[in-house]
Amino acid sequence: RSMATAARQSLKIGMLPADGIGREVLPAARAAIIALGSSIPKPEFIDLAAGFELFTKTGTALPDETVSILQNECDCALFGAVSSPSRKVVGYSSPIVALRKKMDLYANIRPVASVAATAGGKPDVDLVVIRENTECLYIKQETLQQGEFGKEARATRLITERASRRIGDMAFKTALSRPRKHVTIIHKSNVLSVTDGLFRETVRAVPALPEVNGRYDQITIAEQLVDSAVYRLFREPHIFDVMVAPNLYGDILSDAAAALVGSLGLVPSINAGDSFVMGEPVHGSAPDIAGQDIANPLAAMRSAALMLRHLGYGEGADRIEKAVDEVIREGNVLTPDLGGKSKTSEVVNEVVKRI
Amino acid sequence: RSMATAARQSLKIGMLPADGIGREVLPAARAAIIALGSSIPKPEFIDLAAGFELFTKTGTALPDETVSILQNECDCALFGAVSSPSRKVVGYSSPIVALRKKMDLYANIRPVASVAATAGGKPDVDLVVIRENTECLYIKQETLQQGEFGKEARATRLITERASRRIGDMAFKTALSRPRKHVTIIHKSNVLSVTDGLFRETVRAVPALPEVNGRYDQITIAEQLVDSAVYRLFREPHIFDVMVAPNLYGDILSDAAAALVGSLGLVPSINAGDSFVMGEPVHGSAPDIAGQDIANPLAAMRSAALMLRHLGYGEGADRIEKAVDEVIREGNVLTPDLGGKSKTSEVVNEVVKRI
Ligand SMILES: CC(C)[C@H](C(=O)O)[C@@H](O)C(=O)O
Ligand SMILES: CC(C)[C@H](C(=O)O)[C@@H](O)C(=O)O
Repeated sequence: RSMATAARQSLKIGMLPADGIGREVLPAARAAIIALGSSIPKPEFIDLAAGFELFTKTGTALPDETVSILQNECDCALFGAVSSPSRKVVGYSSPIVALRKKMDLYANIRPVASVAATAGGKPDVDLVVIRENTECLYIKQETLQQGEFGKEARATRLITERASRRIGDMAFKTALSRPRKHVTIIHKSNVLSVTDGLFRETVRAVPALPEVNGRYDQITIAEQLVDSAVYRLFREPHIFDVMVAPNLYGDILSDAAAALVGSLGLVPSINAGDSFVMGEPVHGSAPDIAGQDIANPLAAMRSAALMLRHLGYGEGADRIEKAVDEVIREGNVLTPDLGGKSKTSEVVNEVVKRI
Repeated sequence: RSMATAARQSLKIGMLPADGIGREVLPAARAAIIALGSSIPKPEFIDLAAGFELFTKTGTALPDETVSILQNECDCALFGAVSSPSRKVVGYSSPIVALRKKMDLYANIRPVASVAATAGGKPDVDLVVIRENTECLYIKQETLQQGEFGKEARATRLITERASRRIGDMAFKTALSRPRKHVTIIHKSNVLSVTDGLFRETVRAVPALPEVNGRYDQITIAEQLVDSAVYRLFREPHIFDVMVAPNLYGDILSDAAAALVGSLGLVPSINAGDSFVMGEPVHGSAPDIAGQDIANPLAAMRSAALMLRHLGYGEGADRIEKAVDEVIREGNVLTPDLGGKSKTSEVVNEVVKRI
C-alpha cells in the first residue's frame, strides 16, 4: 500500500543505528537516499537513540523520547542492528522487538533474491519472507518458578486470528505483485494444532473473505511444515515465491534464505504497519567486525529502497536497487563477506555514483 | 551409556512402521539387523501398531497396548515415520511425540555427516544434533478462546532445569567421544531471556557440576542464536561438532543439516532415555513417494545401527554403518533422492551383502 497519498514537502526519517555495524551501515542508507536528489521529497534525518550499548550506559534500550519522536514527527525510520548480551542482563529487553510492537509494525517483509552467483550463493532464489511481527513467542510473556526438580521456565506463544489474517492479507497482496503469484504457508500444526492450526486456517481463508472480493483468486497456495520448509529451502529454493510465517519461524527462515544468496549482508527488510514503515537490514550488529569499515552496506541501502517503495516512491527505490544490483553483478567492489576486498565506504561510493 | 550390561539371550525389538514410507524402510532396518547374524543376541521383532492411518481407522494413533508392550517386553524399538493430517483432525495427536514423552526418551540424537559429495551435498559436514525431546512447545499445552478481535490461541513453552541439565550432559558426553570435542549451545535468549536463558545457563553449567568431576574439562563450548545457527550451518557447516538445542530448534536444525548432506533419506536418529532407546529415521512418511519402492532405506538402516551402538553392540553398529557408507561412496546403487535410479529393495540388497 502506498502511504504517499498526500504529497509531502519533506520526508522525515528517524535514524536508529543502535549497535555495532548498525552505525556503519545506516550512513550508507542515508547516502543512498540523499543521492536520489529531488526525485523524492527532501529527506530530513533525525538521529534517535536505541540499543544495547545505550542500555549499558543509561539503563534503557529504547527511550520513551525515541518512540514519541518516531510516532509524532517521523514519516518513516531506518534501524541498524542491535547487539545481544552474552549473559543474562536484568532489565534488558530488545529494542527492535519492542519497536515493532509499539509501532504496530505487524509485517516484517524480507525479500531474498540472487543477483549473481555471489560467493557460495545459489542462482535460483527469488522469494520473500512475510513474517508476522507482533506475536508468537515474541510477546515475551515468560515466568520462572521453582518446581520439584529445580527451576521451571514457561513462555507463552500467542497466535491470534486478527494478526494471522492481516499478515495473510499482506502475503497475498505481495504475491499479487509478483510474477509467480504463489504463497506458501509455514506452520508446524502437526505439533501445534491449536496455535499453528489457527495460523494456517486463517491465512488459508483470506482469499475467500468477502472484502477481498476475489482479488486473490489467481494466487496458488501451498504449505510446508517449518522443518521441511528449511530443508526444501536448501534443496529446492526455486519452489518458493512468497512464504508467510509466524514470527519465530519467519526469523529462522529469513536467515536461512539469506544464506542461500551468499550473505546476510545482502538481505533487506521493512517492518510495516498500516501507518508507519521502518527499514532494517536483516543482519545483526556483528561485533566481531564492527569498527573496521568492512561491514556490507548493501542490505541497509536496499532497506532504504524498500522503505521508499512502501511509501510510494517506487522510482527512487528502483534507482537504489538497480545501482546495488549492478555493483554486485560487476563484482569488483565488494566487502569480504562476499569474497571481496573492499571497504564499506568504497562500496557505498560505488553504489552512490550509479544512483 | 551402554545398556548391554547383562548379557542378553535375545534382543526384543518393537517395530513401529506407522505410515507411508515408514513401512518400506523398517523392513530394511530389520534386514540389516538380521544380516549381523550371531554377532548380536538373536533379534526378535515385535510388530506394533501406531500412526495416522491407524487413527483414521480406529480412532487412536498410539494404542495403549503398543506402549505397554514397548515398556514391558521390548529391549528397544524402531519407528518408521508418521503422516500429518492436512487439515485439523479432532482428537488426533502425533504418536511419535507421545512416545518420546511416555517412554521418557529425553534425548533425540541426530548425527549428520557427509560421506561423499552426494547429489548437492556439502563435503565438510560432521556434526550431531542433540535435541531435547520432551518439552519446549512439544508439551502441547494449547488453549483457544474468543477475544475482542476474534480467536486467540496460546501455547505454553516449557523449559526446565532438569531437562536442560540432562540434555546438556548428553551433549557433553557425546562430544567426549568425538575428535573435536566441541559443543555449541543453540538458543534464542535475546528474545526468550527466561526460558532460553535457563536452557543456556543450565547447559553451560554442566561441566562444573560436582558429579561431572572435571570429565568435560577438555570440551570447548560455543553458542549461537538459532537463526544465526541455521545461517552458519549453510555457510560454514564445519564450525559445528555437537549442537545441543531445545526441542523445536533441534527439529528445524536437524532438517537443515540433513539438507547439507544431500538427503533427509540419509539421516538417522535415536530417541534415547536412561532405560530405553528407539531408532527413527529423520525423514517423514513422504506420502508422495510411498508404495513405489523408491524410498531411501539408508536412514532407517543407520538408525538401527545407532540403536545397536547405544545398546552396547558397537561392532554390529560399525558393520552396518560401514556397509551403508560403502554403498554411498560407490554411488552405483542409490535411490532417486540421491540422484540414483535404484529401487529401495536393490539398495537394501547392496547394503546387506556388505554386512
Ligand atoms: C535481534 C533479534 C531480536 C531479531 C529477531 O529475532 O527478530 C533479529 O534476529 C531479526 O531477525 O531481526
Ligand atoms: C512428525 C513430527 C511430529 C516430528 C517432530 O517435529 O519431532 C518430526 O518432524 C521429527 O523431526 O521427528
